[in-house]
Amino acid sequence: MRNSKNVSKYLIGKGTFSQLATLLADRQEGYHVYLIDIFFESKNLNLPKRNEDVLFFVDTAHEPTTSYINELRDQIFAKKTNLPTAIIGVGGGVTLDTAKAVSNLLTNGGQAEEYQGWDLVKKAGIYKIGIPTISGTGAEASRTCVMTNYKTGLKLGMNSEFTIYDQLILDHELTQTVPRNQYFYTGMDTYIHSFESLAGRHRHALSDAFSIQSIELSRQIFDSADMMTEENREKMMVASYLGGASLANSFVGVVHPFSAGLSVVLGTHHCIANCITMRAMEEFYPKEYKEFWKMAEKQKVTIPEGICRNLNAEQYQKLYDSTVIHQVPLKNALGENFKEILTLEKVTEVFKKM
Amino acid sequence: MRNSKNVSKYLIGKGTFSQLATLLADRQEGYHVYLIDIFFESKNLNLPKRNEDVLFFVDTAHEPTTSYINELRDQIFAKKTNLPTAIIGVGGGVTLDTAKAVSNLLTNGGQAEEYQGWDLVKKAGIYKIGIPTISGTGAEASRTCVMTNYKTGLKLGMNSEFTIYDQLILDHELTQTVPRNQYFYTGMDTYIHSFESLAGRHRHALSDAFSIQSIELSRQIFDSADMMTEENREKMMVASYLGGASLANSFVGVVHPFSAGLSVVLGTHHCIANCITMRAMEEFYPKEYKEFWKMAEKQKVTIPEGICRNLNAEQYQKLYDSTVIHQVPLKNALGENFKEILTLEKVTEVFKKM
Repeated sequence: MRNSKNVSKYLIGKGTFSQLATLLADRQEGYHVYLIDIFFESKNLNLPKRNEDVLFFVDTAHEPTTSYINELRDQIFAKKTNLPTAIIGVGGGVTLDTAKAVSNLLTNGGQAEEYQGWDLVKKAGIYKIGIPTISGTGAEASRTCVMTNYKTGLKLGMNSEFTIYDQLILDHELTQTVPRNQYFYTGMDTYIHSFESLAGRHRHALSDAFSIQSIELSRQIFDSADMMTEENREKMMVASYLGGASLANSFVGVVHPFSAGLSVVLGTHHCIANCITMRAMEEFYPKEYKEFWKMAEKQKVTIPEGICRNLNAEQYQKLYDSTVIHQVPLKNALGENFKEILTLEKVTEVFKKM
Repeated sequence: MRNSKNVSKYLIGKGTFSQLATLLADRQEGYHVYLIDIFFESKNLNLPKRNEDVLFFVDTAHEPTTSYINELRDQIFAKKTNLPTAIIGVGGGVTLDTAKAVSNLLTNGGQAEEYQGWDLVKKAGIYKIGIPTISGTGAEASRTCVMTNYKTGLKLGMNSEFTIYDQLILDHELTQTVPRNQYFYTGMDTYIHSFESLAGRHRHALSDAFSIQSIELSRQIFDSADMMTEENREKMMVASYLGGASLANSFVGVVHPFSAGLSVVLGTHHCIANCITMRAMEEFYPKEYKEFWKMAEKQKVTIPEGICRNLNAEQYQKLYDSTVIHQVPLKNALGENFKEILTLEKVTEVFKKM
């Protein structure tokens, strides 16, 4: 039985971002590393950054790679000879995961790819603060940080209790400027991984409670007239946190493996890939399929269609391979013999439905 | 805005109690202090207690007093010259609160009464593990430990982030032997403080989510044929944890102040006092009143009646004083001018309804 770790502390509510300076007050010695979503490059975030601090804008056009994490470490050590006293990640899932990975790598040494897996991180990372500016991935609360190693093809995070944030700031003022489609795609990540978890064979009483509440909040948000009201953005912060907290002790199902296939083969980003996958999920999750499309329609969101209809045999084989490789969630959803259900023919048919 | 702290780690599920030895494995130096609910005095809990460890059975006939906490500290120092490396509390709310208070007092020095209030504890306490054997108070997840100081009449805990447990074991096998009435009284504590919190003026998005889910689980448990099935006892562990986590950022309402009045004047224990108070709560919480009594009937639970019907004027005055002293929850429930609603006459009438 796994010992579950919670995020240590959190500030929640409108305007809490302004408390960042206070949180750093007793870490004034040494320097801080800011990892900021490139979305904010031209905006004034009013960061409490001092001259000695180091700031990187995180390019979110691509999901984090192990070589990118190593490179950030190298860039920090090109400027500094000692370790920072805090790392602050401000952004979406990519940025939050990047901050977690850099924090672990700085104290543990070696290369990022050495920590891809379960409980390979041996030491606590640098004290880290996570500040989401878009909600849904649950990266702020989860015990992993997804990274792709292009040398080995492995897409796997540093799954460790040390990966969990020491401090969160959940300020829904920061999500005001998110584009509407992106808000929906990302928000739906928590709805999707929560229903996958609840439909799976693996049970965990507390994760179940978190997932149920995350879905309930998602319904309130996306079944309302406007998913982006202030009240809904605050609820979305909570839904995302609960979904992430749930994930630490539960497993996803059919959606995420297919979605990962899209990401690996076609380079589709995680959250939009989930939504595209939902086009083909009626037979696996009939109730949620109906609900998802009702919500997408209500929020007038555009979800790409037909991106897998005219691929060649080699591409379908690659999609198949990069889907069925996710044995843990597929066993959770479909049982030990999931490959009898998910044949190459079946998987191809599912991708064509998207 | 308050920075909220979570319980650091938790193990949840049937049989997790057997992992206690593993949790203590890297704290083998020094001695451990076990604080065990006296209910288990004649039972074999199979504790990993070593010869050098110190064990006290906690008398749960009375709720913790500051002098009792001081006395436990004195008894530990009568046997040992150094500090323990772990404190393990196994029991209900009284025992869990006692372990928290002793942990803080040992490292902070002075007397327990010096820490009654908000954020008066200055140093982290001894590493502490909480293991509930009855669910509902939320003591396992809350940031306080209620204590009465009979010299000053003050009933107030050490409300501090340091009061929060480092580790929980939530094993519903431990709640198998709880007497049915007690299971209901205690279980209802989380239902009651959750609906009080949601009905109040103060809002906190995450606490709201926890409260809603705690109520939902309470409904599933107490509206079922048998509240004490294995599944329901597991759900009750979760409901209690969520209720306690909610309380850290929210306030109770009308029930708890009246219930506290009963405790102070008539010595009624907290959880049964809440249930007795519910007899008179129809006008304040009509929906929950109806639901509460439906659940009590369904579970065939006996709740005392008429305990405040034939008291004298002095006793009613005392009940009034010890109810309206709870300004924070009463303002949360009824507004700044709550004393215009809760006159002596009105409060007396409410107590007579019980």
